[in-house]
Amino acid sequence: MRVDRVNGGASTDIIEFTPNADQYAYTFGGAKPVMDVSPGSVLRLWSEDAFNGRLQTVEDRPSEKLDMTAVNPQTGPFYVTGAEPGDTLALHIVDLTPARDWGVSSAIQNFGGMTSTPLNPTLQDPLPEQTWIYQADLERRVVRFSAVNSQFELDLPMSPMLGTVGVAPPAREVRTSLVPGSYGGNMDTPEMRAGATAYFGVNVEGALFSIGDGHYRQGEGEACGTAVEGAMNSTIIVELIKGGAPPTWPRVETDDALMVVGSARPLEDAWRIAQADMVDWISALYGLTPMDSYQLISQTSLAPLANVVDTNYSAVVKIEKRLLPPAQSYQGMHDHLRGRAEELRAAGLQPFRPGTPLDLTD
Amino acid sequence: MRVDRVNGGASTDIIEFTPNADQYAYTFGGAKPVMDVSPGSVLRLWSEDAFNGRLQTVEDRPSEKLDMTAVNPQTGPFYVTGAEPGDTLALHIVDLTPARDWGVSSAIQNFGGMTSTPLNPTLQDPLPEQTWIYQADLERRVVRFSAVNSQFELDLPMSPMLGTVGVAPPAREVRTSLVPGSYGGNMDTPEMRAGATAYFGVNVEGALFSIGDGHYRQGEGEACGTAVEGAMNSTIIVELIKGGAPPTWPRVETDDALMVVGSARPLEDAWRIAQADMVDWISALYGLTPMDSYQLISQTSLAPLANVVDTNYSAVVKIEKRLLPPAQSYQGMHDHLRGRAEELRAAGLQPFRPGTPLDLTD
Amino acid sequence: MRVDRVNGGASTDIIEFTPNADQYAYTFGGAKPVMDVSPGSVLRLWSEDAFNGRLQTVEDRPSEKLDMTAVNPQTGPFYVTGAEPGDTLALHIVDLTPARDWGVSSAIQNFGGMTSTPLNPTLQDPLPEQTWIYQADLERRVVRFSAVNSQFELDLPMSPMLGTVGVAPPAREVRTSLVPGSYGGNMDTPEMRAGATAYFGVNVEGALFSIGDGHYRQGEGEACGTAVEGAMNSTIIVELIKGGAPPTWPRVETDDALMVVGSARPLEDAWRIAQADMVDWISALYGLTPMDSYQLISQTSLAPLANVVDTNYSAVVKIEKRLLPPAQSYQGMHDHLRGRAEELRAAGLQPFRPGTPLDLTD
Amino acid sequence: MRVDRVNGGASTDIIEFTPNADQYAYTFGGAKPVMDVSPGSVLRLWSEDAFNGRLQTVEDRPSEKLDMTAVNPQTGPFYVTGAEPGDTLALHIVDLTPARDWGVSSAIQNFGGMTSTPLNPTLQDPLPEQTWIYQADLERRVVRFSAVNSQFELDLPMSPMLGTVGVAPPAREVRTSLVPGSYGGNMDTPEMRAGATAYFGVNVEGALFSIGDGHYRQGEGEACGTAVEGAMNSTIIVELIKGGAPPTWPRVETDDALMVVGSARPLEDAWRIAQADMVDWISALYGLTPMDSYQLISQTSLAPLANVVDTNYSAVVKIEKRLLPPAQSYQGMHDHLRGRAEELRAAGLQPFRPGTPLDLTD
Repeated sequence: MRVDRVNGGASTDIIEFTPNADQYAYTFGGAKPVMDVSPGSVLRLWSEDAFNGRLQTVEDRPSEKLDMTAVNPQTGPFYVTGAEPGDTLALHIVDLTPARDWGVSSAIQNFGGMTSTPLNPTLQDPLPEQTWIYQADLERRVVRFSAVNSQFELDLPMSPMLGTVGVAPPAREVRTSLVPGSYGGNMDTPEMRAGATAYFGVNVEGALFSIGDGHYRQGEGEACGTAVEGAMNSTIIVELIKGGAPPTWPRVETDDALMVVGSARPLEDAWRIAQADMVDWISALYGLTPMDSYQLISQTSLAPLANVVDTNYSAVVKIEKRLLPPAQSYQGMHDHLRGRAEELRAAGLQPFRPGTPLDLTD
Repeated sequence: MRVDRVNGGASTDIIEFTPNADQYAYTFGGAKPVMDVSPGSVLRLWSEDAFNGRLQTVEDRPSEKLDMTAVNPQTGPFYVTGAEPGDTLALHIVDLTPARDWGVSSAIQNFGGMTSTPLNPTLQDPLPEQTWIYQADLERRVVRFSAVNSQFELDLPMSPMLGTVGVAPPAREVRTSLVPGSYGGNMDTPEMRAGATAYFGVNVEGALFSIGDGHYRQGEGEACGTAVEGAMNSTIIVELIKGGAPPTWPRVETDDALMVVGSARPLEDAWRIAQADMVDWISALYGLTPMDSYQLISQTSLAPLANVVDTNYSAVVKIEKRLLPPAQSYQGMHDHLRGRAEELRAAGLQPFRPGTPLDLTD
Repeated sequence: MRVDRVNGGASTDIIEFTPNADQYAYTFGGAKPVMDVSPGSVLRLWSEDAFNGRLQTVEDRPSEKLDMTAVNPQTGPFYVTGAEPGDTLALHIVDLTPARDWGVSSAIQNFGGMTSTPLNPTLQDPLPEQTWIYQADLERRVVRFSAVNSQFELDLPMSPMLGTVGVAPPAREVRTSLVPGSYGGNMDTPEMRAGATAYFGVNVEGALFSIGDGHYRQGEGEACGTAVEGAMNSTIIVELIKGGAPPTWPRVETDDALMVVGSARPLEDAWRIAQADMVDWISALYGLTPMDSYQLISQTSLAPLANVVDTNYSAVVKIEKRLLPPAQSYQGMHDHLRGRAEELRAAGLQPFRPGTPLDLTD
Repeated sequence: MRVDRVNGGASTDIIEFTPNADQYAYTFGGAKPVMDVSPGSVLRLWSEDAFNGRLQTVEDRPSEKLDMTAVNPQTGPFYVTGAEPGDTLALHIVDLTPARDWGVSSAIQNFGGMTSTPLNPTLQDPLPEQTWIYQADLERRVVRFSAVNSQFELDLPMSPMLGTVGVAPPAREVRTSLVPGSYGGNMDTPEMRAGATAYFGVNVEGALFSIGDGHYRQGEGEACGTAVEGAMNSTIIVELIKGGAPPTWPRVETDDALMVVGSARPLEDAWRIAQADMVDWISALYGLTPMDSYQLISQTSLAPLANVVDTNYSAVVKIEKRLLPPAQSYQGMHDHLRGRAEELRAAGLQPFRPGTPLDLTD
């Protein structure tokens, strides 16, 4: 573990942290915090890819290389000082920069959206295992898809995101880092990218949030079960909203949109969860009755799927701010954090360079 | 019924058709065709709103005004000369212009995405009935949401689309115009807008397609069960692709994207249907194996939901063309039809004016 | 077609009917009635097996032998004189006797509960096709399972039932005989056996009921998609209850139990449909509020699945009469029909002998 | 805590244990074991009802009396000496005797099968809260249903079962005692009654099993979300099968049947899980290929639902032994345990008397 605390201004900690392999967490809840952070801190975090870095060539077979009970390693959890049940944790993603010059995706047997799995089994033979390596070009901001069975190659825009962000679950539960739920977790939505502020209800003292599962790119639905997975350097500002009405499901705010992420099976219930919470959110923002809010949302909301592959599926309900009158959520927290991010940039904060692992000491 | 055939060029029929109330179809399959049209024809069609025009004020209660066995009236079906099972019908939407200066949405009891329904019942009381009237301004291209229970008002961009487009189903079936399926029908996707070419496998002689359920605007998911419903003037070019490999589920092509619409319950299966067909489509276009295609789509496809309210739910899988190498589907049919539409515009074809019903005789 | 009307007593028609192959119906709704029958009639009906008799050896491959758009042939439909929408049709199964000395089951590719299907596709290879022939011994009342891939053989009790019983659907729809719904159809529940009275709401004039899909035996769920399928001789009494409160979903009454069959996807919704209707039924029978009825049913109802393989899944909710105070449904119709059946037996009515087809003329 | 170890024979511990309120576990996994037990031990356990004993009259409202994060208290967990991952834990239920002369059921708001819940929300108002008290008569072995809103009363047969039996989950997870899964847990199947042997794969050292949620009676599906809940005295023999092939999902064996319990959403997937494991089981017992086993099970298995109300739904797939050739599962463990139970009875082991709590010291 390398940790540096850098005084980033009047009252701001800038904390850089790259976990050792024995520090990864594989659960939400149940893992000891790697450190305490105070609200307002800026975290610069390195995270390993979802395969624990074990898939490196197209010949690497997941069944030989992976331990499926220890995938999707998390960087964290972090204990947020002062966070208590009933509070709201705000995590603003300032920057996501790939930490390697290659990403990797894989068809793991009996895992993914277009195959039977242990939770929706059939008697059919599994799909073949296969690994794809994507060369990543940070300058041109592309990843290169190379077909395994033909000569087809294609550059795709790099679009970094975090597949997994969450806090400890309620009701004493511990879930693996493969599961999304009301506490966030492995939601796998492309909306979790730089510029987004994610809000989570705090369930336990210290909130105990962690991040991981960096994706250099992902389609909505994450059909084959894995994105262009890659180690990631994340710059995140942590904030805490004491009391009030914490969200029951993860909410995400960007400059352009309000979003809720629901996770459940079947998929319509994930969508219903997000829709119900959006009704609450819009009702509160504009003083509408639930029926008026339901109507307004019916005509304005977008519904980009997140994943249809995890043990719970995740659906996003999203409303573009341009359609709505100006309004402030969580006391203007998103705008505040955007301002903070701008200050950091103005002060010369650089994106992390790629590196495996990122060496913060030189 | 008013029908005018106008010679629109060397070999093109331009057919204008406004059905009388007793000509509406309420099913896909099982209804007599209103007329024969030949491939290459341009249709200018008026369609009534999904409520049969019976909801006109916020006081109108669906339970009093609607006959739920005769809603979503269709304009058609049209018998396409020469169409046989195994062919592909292409419908290109040149233009959609609202035919009234108001639209209407309604919360119908026991219908919609956020209520129990006869197909997923609970013992709870139904939600209250409510109707919302949206003033439509064709100049400013906005519809105005007016809350029923408070003073809140909001202009929303007009974004006309057809909720329902389809052909007769296979296997002798007849489905109401409320049901989406492999034959299209009530898919309720905002992607069915001007500029789109929809492809349907032909199941019966003449294909027997119809359209209806015009929406001046709709959110993805159509949460409350109804969009901003309104009478619509549609300009559509009909084409036929003989033989080849007809799509098993509706495909949609625009200048910007390839799409498939799957319809089923639960919602994940609607998405799986669309995903599986997209794998076939991309495999064929680029000579990829299914596994390579699955991988490529996993990292590139979008998944905007269509509806989570009908008797089958509909999910769209969409890939932006900008991400893919150039390729021609259906022998370049979409580009051909775009060219035809441009010629019509160049020849002075005007959008229909709004009117109820649109009087084509003066 | 051979039809004989036999005067079976004061006012009773006994009608024997064996359809020719060109008389089979493949839909509910949309098919012309084969004959009119009056309430009170006794029908003695021969029905072909669900494979149209085309699978006869373990070498017969469904993909070669079957036309999947013409399977599950129905005997009927019958036009019940006097039946109007709002009425209730009662069909009492007096006797089911296998019409052949062998039955057949088959694993059809992409069909069944433990494989992906066109409605819940994956990219996996299909399961292998396979056909099993069961020798039927009407004396010992067993069918013999013979494993295809080993020497294992096993006699199983014969337990004849009808997979498919239903009326024309509402709202102008026509459904294939593979689909179950509110109109009955391909429910595939082992509860549809001799001694049962099935109640259906009448949706169109004449009700237009048909029967078919005889099973010599079936497990609950019908996992592989097909039962021990066989031609069947059915003796059925037809009755009509004018007006009143027709059931919205099929209800089944035996000497021992009250049942409702719900059909939908996902499976929980099929169960919910049946449960909701059982709440109505029990509330009406015993003057209970819905909450008290809900409670009572929660502690008393059984939930034997019917099928998890058709385009809609079917679930049965069942309450044993021994648990409930005596009460009469539908004015004691079941007891009345049981009495009628007893009279027929006392008058010497014999079960049909097996035969392919059953020759009624000698 | 009162614990008595009684020498019950040559090598058998008979352990009586009644937890104090602060000893209840509310999770599977994550709770400290209350004691070590060795394989072969006989446990006589008292368990509190699922409401923690807080609902005692029809006026008691769950929203006022219950803490929903601490319901379904478990007696245990027990650390089984020698149990390691890869082993199979066998729990044989010798006897279940109600520990009180009343049971209780309740409609908890937003919980149950016929209402929207936080995982499948709608915007409808919740159902009313209501509590029902059932008088239990151990002599006549009945519980009395008393309608709350009318004078209707009805004696129902007492049929004691355990709603919740399970071990610690795999992959570091901790689940609340409301959740069923591959580790067992809150399966809520009426099949978990005296005479049953339940088999669980061991996921962690010591297995860490617990029991609770006694039901004096329950319908299949547990529609309203709660059974006739009651404190229970359970006599259970613990055994361990080292190595071999532990079941991936809970299996249950009785004198009459083999069963598997699958838990998932949607409900068809719970059924598929159980069906897939039954294919494995039958294939192994009789040397059948999966396709032959699939066929045999399709014609023989029963599918009585367990619950359609918990966070995962549970479905049972069941085959009656009378249909199958004799065969021994788990080296004849069930027969061995039945013999042990007979010996205990012959040695004069009495069922526990009812009592709240059962006083073991006098």
